[in-house]
Amino acid sequence: MTHLLVVAHGSRREDSNLEIRELTKQLRLMTNCFAAIDCAFLEIAEPSIAQALTQQITLGARQIVVMPYFLSAGRHVSIDIPEQVQRIRDTHPQIDIRIANHLGAAETIGEIAIELAILAI
Amino acid sequence: MTHLLVVAHGSRREDSNLEIRELTKQLRLMTNCFAAIDCAFLEIAEPSIAQALTQQITLGARQIVVMPYFLSAGRHVSIDIPEQVQRIRDTHPQIDIRIANHLGAAETIGEIAIELAILAI
Repeated sequence: MTHLLVVAHGSRREDSNLEIRELTKQLRLMTNCFAAIDCAFLEIAEPSIAQALTQQITLGARQIVVMPYFLSAGRHVSIDIPEQVQRIRDTHPQIDIRIANHLGAAETIGEIAIELAILAI
Repeated sequence: MTHLLVVAHGSRREDSNLEIRELTKQLRLMTNCFAAIDCAFLEIAEPSIAQALTQQITLGARQIVVMPYFLSAGRHVSIDIPEQVQRIRDTHPQIDIRIANHLGAAETIGEIAIELAILAI
């Protein structure tokens, strides 16, 4: 019973948050490796990481993978997300919550950038 | 003689900017479709978009593809980068400067997110 939580930064522009909500719907169609796939936002938008993790646990998650939807391994990825996740681990020690590599860590990101650039030539 | 300019946001953490500079080096090894591949930053870090485009033009670029290295089609992608690019187009009307789709527009981004998440199970 593994759930996936995609965590994005969160924006004042609801259109940007909507992109993440739409991406989450797409991910649900792309894999059956997770019992549920949801999104959360580090700041500004809702649900927060704490809200989303708590709901997933309430719905029966026993293992949760948090996927930082960030290109850069900056402070948000290295400190802020782990801190917020740790608070939920502390209150729900029986739940196995893991943090995946952030999106920008994937080597294939470079290939995607090249493909998009070539399309514009 | 097409040059590629990867444009990232720019961070106060030089480590984050360094990730972009390293990515740029990787991209140079991945394709021979561009006479040169450089990076620039929308704000905070250097070179700026104007500085980088001007240098590429000085070095002989006749066509330049600007690749917005952003996940979200927010204000930076929809307004700020096009405005800065347009200023260079206005002063160098003989140069063909195109803006590629931003990174987050690629459908394969979702697949990468799923792959990274599954690795964490």
